[in-house]
Amino acid sequence: MGKRLKMATIGGGSSYTPELVEGLIKRYHELPVGELWLVDIPEGKEKLEIVGALAKRMVEKAGVPIEIHLTLDRRRALEGADFVTTQFRVGGLEARAKDERIPLKYGVIGQETNGPGGLFKGLRTIPVILDIIRDMEELCPDAWLINFTNPAGMVTEAVLRYTKQEKVVGLCNVPIGMRMGVAKLLGVDADRVHIDFAGLNHMVFGLHVYLDGVEVTEKVIDLVAHPDRSGVTMKNIVDLGWEPDFLKGLKVLPCPYHRYYYQTDKMLAEELEAAKTKGTRAEVVQQLEKELFELYKDPNLAIKPPQLEQRGGAYYSDAACSLISSIYNDKRDIQPVNTRNNGAIASIPPESAVEVNCVITKDGPKPIAVGDLPVAVRGLVQQIKSFERVAAEAAVTGDYQTALVAMTINPLVPSDTIAKQMLDEMLEAHKEHLPQFFKQAKTVAGN
Amino acid sequence: MGKRLKMATIGGGSSYTPELVEGLIKRYHELPVGELWLVDIPEGKEKLEIVGALAKRMVEKAGVPIEIHLTLDRRRALEGADFVTTQFRVGGLEARAKDERIPLKYGVIGQETNGPGGLFKGLRTIPVILDIIRDMEELCPDAWLINFTNPAGMVTEAVLRYTKQEKVVGLCNVPIGMRMGVAKLLGVDADRVHIDFAGLNHMVFGLHVYLDGVEVTEKVIDLVAHPDRSGVTMKNIVDLGWEPDFLKGLKVLPCPYHRYYYQTDKMLAEELEAAKTKGTRAEVVQQLEKELFELYKDPNLAIKPPQLEQRGGAYYSDAACSLISSIYNDKRDIQPVNTRNNGAIASIPPESAVEVNCVITKDGPKPIAVGDLPVAVRGLVQQIKSFERVAAEAAVTGDYQTALVAMTINPLVPSDTIAKQMLDEMLEAHKEHLPQFFKQAKTVAGN
Amino acid sequence: MGKRLKMATIGGGSSYTPELVEGLIKRYHELPVGELWLVDIPEGKEKLEIVGALAKRMVEKAGVPIEIHLTLDRRRALEGADFVTTQFRVGGLEARAKDERIPLKYGVIGQETNGPGGLFKGLRTIPVILDIIRDMEELCPDAWLINFTNPAGMVTEAVLRYTKQEKVVGLCNVPIGMRMGVAKLLGVDADRVHIDFAGLNHMVFGLHVYLDGVEVTEKVIDLVAHPDRSGVTMKNIVDLGWEPDFLKGLKVLPCPYHRYYYQTDKMLAEELEAAKTKGTRAEVVQQLEKELFELYKDPNLAIKPPQLEQRGGAYYSDAACSLISSIYNDKRDIQPVNTRNNGAIASIPPESAVEVNCVITKDGPKPIAVGDLPVAVRGLVQQIKSFERVAAEAAVTGDYQTALVAMTINPLVPSDTIAKQMLDEMLEAHKEHLPQFFKQAKTVAGN
Amino acid sequence: MGKRLKMATIGGGSSYTPELVEGLIKRYHELPVGELWLVDIPEGKEKLEIVGALAKRMVEKAGVPIEIHLTLDRRRALEGADFVTTQFRVGGLEARAKDERIPLKYGVIGQETNGPGGLFKGLRTIPVILDIIRDMEELCPDAWLINFTNPAGMVTEAVLRYTKQEKVVGLCNVPIGMRMGVAKLLGVDADRVHIDFAGLNHMVFGLHVYLDGVEVTEKVIDLVAHPDRSGVTMKNIVDLGWEPDFLKGLKVLPCPYHRYYYQTDKMLAEELEAAKTKGTRAEVVQQLEKELFELYKDPNLAIKPPQLEQRGGAYYSDAACSLISSIYNDKRDIQPVNTRNNGAIASIPPESAVEVNCVITKDGPKPIAVGDLPVAVRGLVQQIKSFERVAAEAAVTGDYQTALVAMTINPLVPSDTIAKQMLDEMLEAHKEHLPQFFKQAKTVAGN
Repeated sequence: MGKRLKMATIGGGSSYTPELVEGLIKRYHELPVGELWLVDIPEGKEKLEIVGALAKRMVEKAGVPIEIHLTLDRRRALEGADFVTTQFRVGGLEARAKDERIPLKYGVIGQETNGPGGLFKGLRTIPVILDIIRDMEELCPDAWLINFTNPAGMVTEAVLRYTKQEKVVGLCNVPIGMRMGVAKLLGVDADRVHIDFAGLNHMVFGLHVYLDGVEVTEKVIDLVAHPDRSGVTMKNIVDLGWEPDFLKGLKVLPCPYHRYYYQTDKMLAEELEAAKTKGTRAEVVQQLEKELFELYKDPNLAIKPPQLEQRGGAYYSDAACSLISSIYNDKRDIQPVNTRNNGAIASIPPESAVEVNCVITKDGPKPIAVGDLPVAVRGLVQQIKSFERVAAEAAVTGDYQTALVAMTINPLVPSDTIAKQMLDEMLEAHKEHLPQFFKQAKTVAGN
Repeated sequence: MGKRLKMATIGGGSSYTPELVEGLIKRYHELPVGELWLVDIPEGKEKLEIVGALAKRMVEKAGVPIEIHLTLDRRRALEGADFVTTQFRVGGLEARAKDERIPLKYGVIGQETNGPGGLFKGLRTIPVILDIIRDMEELCPDAWLINFTNPAGMVTEAVLRYTKQEKVVGLCNVPIGMRMGVAKLLGVDADRVHIDFAGLNHMVFGLHVYLDGVEVTEKVIDLVAHPDRSGVTMKNIVDLGWEPDFLKGLKVLPCPYHRYYYQTDKMLAEELEAAKTKGTRAEVVQQLEKELFELYKDPNLAIKPPQLEQRGGAYYSDAACSLISSIYNDKRDIQPVNTRNNGAIASIPPESAVEVNCVITKDGPKPIAVGDLPVAVRGLVQQIKSFERVAAEAAVTGDYQTALVAMTINPLVPSDTIAKQMLDEMLEAHKEHLPQFFKQAKTVAGN
Repeated sequence: MGKRLKMATIGGGSSYTPELVEGLIKRYHELPVGELWLVDIPEGKEKLEIVGALAKRMVEKAGVPIEIHLTLDRRRALEGADFVTTQFRVGGLEARAKDERIPLKYGVIGQETNGPGGLFKGLRTIPVILDIIRDMEELCPDAWLINFTNPAGMVTEAVLRYTKQEKVVGLCNVPIGMRMGVAKLLGVDADRVHIDFAGLNHMVFGLHVYLDGVEVTEKVIDLVAHPDRSGVTMKNIVDLGWEPDFLKGLKVLPCPYHRYYYQTDKMLAEELEAAKTKGTRAEVVQQLEKELFELYKDPNLAIKPPQLEQRGGAYYSDAACSLISSIYNDKRDIQPVNTRNNGAIASIPPESAVEVNCVITKDGPKPIAVGDLPVAVRGLVQQIKSFERVAAEAAVTGDYQTALVAMTINPLVPSDTIAKQMLDEMLEAHKEHLPQFFKQAKTVAGN
Repeated sequence: MGKRLKMATIGGGSSYTPELVEGLIKRYHELPVGELWLVDIPEGKEKLEIVGALAKRMVEKAGVPIEIHLTLDRRRALEGADFVTTQFRVGGLEARAKDERIPLKYGVIGQETNGPGGLFKGLRTIPVILDIIRDMEELCPDAWLINFTNPAGMVTEAVLRYTKQEKVVGLCNVPIGMRMGVAKLLGVDADRVHIDFAGLNHMVFGLHVYLDGVEVTEKVIDLVAHPDRSGVTMKNIVDLGWEPDFLKGLKVLPCPYHRYYYQTDKMLAEELEAAKTKGTRAEVVQQLEKELFELYKDPNLAIKPPQLEQRGGAYYSDAACSLISSIYNDKRDIQPVNTRNNGAIASIPPESAVEVNCVITKDGPKPIAVGDLPVAVRGLVQQIKSFERVAAEAAVTGDYQTALVAMTINPLVPSDTIAKQMLDEMLEAHKEHLPQFFKQAKTVAGN
């Protein structure tokens, strides 16, 4: 084994970090990470120290020689890195709570990736990502950026359109979760199941499902459609079942997030109810995180606590470390990631980001051509792509009208007027994290 | 002048017919129609006779030698025809009223072209159109089919995909109405205004607006966006204004029907209110038609009565006769029609129907390449195209699941469950006009 | 009539200028050119003065108030111009003679547009065109550039790819010549014939031919293919006939330049013979020009002399003035020009230059979508497009290897080795006009 | 291990068969072929018996339970087969000799795949392949067709366009040969080398070359371009070196067959010389085959004789058995094969056959999207694709004019007239194997 690797994790104080550390420990034999730099901002210092101490106990207990570094100096962490992972959240869960609460006031689902909430998460996140990339160009020009920060599709689109960074991959645990769910439905081991994934982040479809290489798509759809069987969903998304005839007519497997678009009224009712009772997802997670950090503080804890799985990010560790290892080892195995389309999906522009099965090589992901999405799902996917592109443009330019167009064309938003009202209230609520929209105002005020 | 032309109008008993007759009279010098055959079904016999008598008085008064023939025998009318126009309405305005009333019960806009109502209008209409085309192949293989029957986009898509008929054009008065509206806003004659139209039927955008050849798009958008100015809309669509910043950010001119998608909540409220008070559009039109036919009966009336303009089909006459004349005379002028895309709009498949500016030749419309639609509007257009294609497939196959998918993916429909409820109720309500969905049941009943 | 127009013609001393002046005189009622600036370089001063004097006599005799200005100061001519036309020839006919003679030494046709000669004409011309555009951006940013300088396709490609100039049209007299030729074959007036042109410059096909709007393609191909009938060709291209079965199988009308690719051996034999006897085309034209300038000197001559038609540029005047007038008057008529493809031809990239029928508007040419070229001709067209693009890149970068690739992939060139030999000899022969390839050498020499 | 597999090899009497048998023996542990049916036509009975006897000795010696069946009854061999391989040669090497000799008379390279010879090989082969597929649909509808018969690209194109057979893969040993050659140049094991292949059969490029996952394309091109190093070529293609600057400018690795297009004059000279001295390739191979069959007759021989490698088909065995095993075992490894493009190469139609790296699954090859070919090579590839498509159409329709167009547009053919002369002579020479072109004549003769 040659050179040992340096990895930098932006947003290192996240409650997810033990997942990542566990993944690195498990794969140390094939992925020789020598240094893991956990970076955070001053406001996250306490969390960083708690989770960092746990990480140190984990590698020590496992007996692998990974050095854990904690720092608030992002540039130092990036210097000479081989892999950079991003899992930060601008404004924290408080910001996400606003992304969810404000739209609900207008009778609209917030949806932190492809909805109005996702627009604002993008507006806050994209400038920071572009800033990290500028640092990377200078400090670690050969490093790969593995982005987990949502909205992963919009972020990847922005990186592809507005930077020259080609070594970027967006990662999501939805496809792996779908594979696990399908395996459970079929009662088989997940590694016997293969799914041809194609679409966008949180808007991905399973076009064909195979068991031991033999297509079983129709059977799986029947199972998912069956009213007595629990469908394929995620911890953080309510499973409301599907109209069996709709799913059978669709002929492909939707992802859990499709419920927001194909069951808008029901999802809205659920979210309104939850907001009144147990809190929005951000608020539930805030409580979960609080409990997790209490656990993490325990000096006797030296493994990833099982409670972390409740947090919603199941399989992230596996997906991320597996991706990094496949790049490092030029494994040429198949994984679904967010990358430049390159013609793999016919009706999405070749230069746009898509989520699609790729061969993972040392030279990055190479998408497998699927031809095209079925006609019935193509339109919604293209509409979300329009939304992502206009939103990314708004994030980069800070242009108010562009942001309003992004908000209005989002399929969850009922009108230009509601869009404007939400936009105005959310811009104000997130003001401190959206300097690009308030620069001029400040300048004017400064005079 | 050589051979005199034979024209057949299916649905000849429509209240629109005097428009068409007026148009033919005005253009007789360049479009020598010798025979106009007005065809209708037995249920429409009375209307056909009333309107036919008026037509005869009109040509007589005008002193042009157009013979008016009234018939219930479609095949006789088609035999040897040069142009066939279709303006029929399967199930009449009663069916349209159901298309509007039933969705409203579920809190959904019916929308007779691109909404749930449009789906059902398509399911009823497409099989009849395909039947007419089969007759045309036999009886008038060289004739052009000029279709005004809505949903014109979906119907044209179905003809292009499911028949070999290449001589088909779908026609709509929305673009000409937009041009008139823009001219009014600018205070100039309409023939000084040119608009680059592109999109789908009832989903068309004005990409660039020119006055005397000079681009004035931004100025026109400012005028349309101005809260004190009435926008560009149609008799049958309420003008709710637009959020000025949305329209300025969009940078292209939407058509009146875009209000259903960009102002869904407000349009729904309007329609619910109207349904309670003055009746749905179909019901209003039923009353208007009744009054019109009373007028038509007047044996002293020998011109198109001005009240017809209230009916909503303004400019149809001009659009239709102008199209037919340009084909007949190989005029090579520019008109927006529904035709095979052929690459004119990049992100719509080349073989699909689009509504786009075309050069009108004796060999049919040749679309002018626009490159692509702006990113912000591309997604919605593609989604409606998905809807149109799945709906056309359902119309041809009579497949229930396909129809449910079409209904669910329509952007006005909030969920698969509401979709199913509406579908079931509407299928039942329109049963007599949807034999393709009830064939099996009949067969079973026959046993 | 409002403002009178300023027009600047680069290469104004060309023998073609009387054509242009005649065209302007004929159209003065609709195209009010107030000033025509004829620009040339010092080496062309004498010709400029001869042809300029003739131009002045022509406008005087015609009684139209067009001022003729002669200048060697290009910037002064461009200042405030409305239309700029380019008809210059870097290195003059001497350079063209080398473009023809040198390849013949290697048994290769020089071909001044799409062959090895065309490569060198492009290498000499493109930097000058880009220089003119830089001046135009500063001195007449709203002017249209109408380029007649060959290779017009490669030049237009270079302008579209390497500048921000959008107001550029490439013009060629081949399509109009084909229309005239077809009309003659059919024995009808040319304005009754319409041809759907599509392809590239000097690589354009007539996809469909219409007489009075009725398709007569097959009939025309039969006439062209008939061994006893003279085909459709040009003054400067020998008509060797076509294999009738080849043409009938092709099903579209080739242009005269296609003989170089579909009859390479015969054309080569002709050119070798001509080089030995009457001289290459450049040499013939040199003689013709000499005679023309003798005529032009005659102070009694005040019209375009009929001998000019022998020169090969027939219809240029009509094509150019007709184009300019259609732009100026927003005529929206149809003309075949070189412009951005925009999807009009499916298998050519949308951003590339093509030669295709366009609607000519004040906002420029709008290509009419043809779908795609027939499979049989698509490959050759794409190969020439590859050649044009690589050649344009070589012209801009001055990169030797890129130029060698362009030369080798040209379909007239038999091997990489012959390509290298010709390239080296031609680079040396044209050294003074190819500074981009010799910059480094000069610098080195300077040390 | 479950069911044992049945494999049918059409053209089983080929001298290549021992390669295939060796491959099956080596992989028996993972690819349990129970029966191998070698099929041939009556004229090949003797060869079939010789090679069949050797095959039986080989499996016996190896101790694997593969039953070898010899038959002249193709339908019996196909019945219930799991894999069908095709390695037949209509008309045998005699026909190939004509494909080479006749064009040389006209100063044209025959080239048995993408040249005039390839056209005729396609015209003879495609109807037989389509016939086999008709049998397969009936007798083994689930079987995979693995085609080695040249011209493999044209044959795959024909199958994709003119049949409903989706389980077809075209296979060629050129890519594996290039990988071996590159490995040799780099002095490393071949399994450390990875090449991104894309293009068409015998027209494939190595777009990127990797050593242990790190790109080394430029280095490899330098090595190949170096005049003192032997390049990457094949046994059956002379290595004439490349102009170093051409290759460096091209920036991708050509395949050996590219010499026919980039070094046409030199290859022609070589072939003319060879025809005079040692004979054309077919004639050399005829001699080699004769010697091979003498070896095969030896009852003591029970392995593949090393002399077979001289035959030119090196690595075929590995390529074929490796492909079949990856399909059978759903290996999802990467192999370059001929398959439906599906968008993997942007400028080739999605429904056309391409040769491109694919993930090999039980569901067939899934092409990896490469975006597009470099501009410089795109044109030639598209021209060969045009040739393949027109040739396939001629093979299916037997239309003379279509065949003449195919011949004329081939880049090796200098004119329509030479094309016609060669076509006529070759049609006559191959008359007995081209019934589709002589049906009508026969009928006429019958009267």
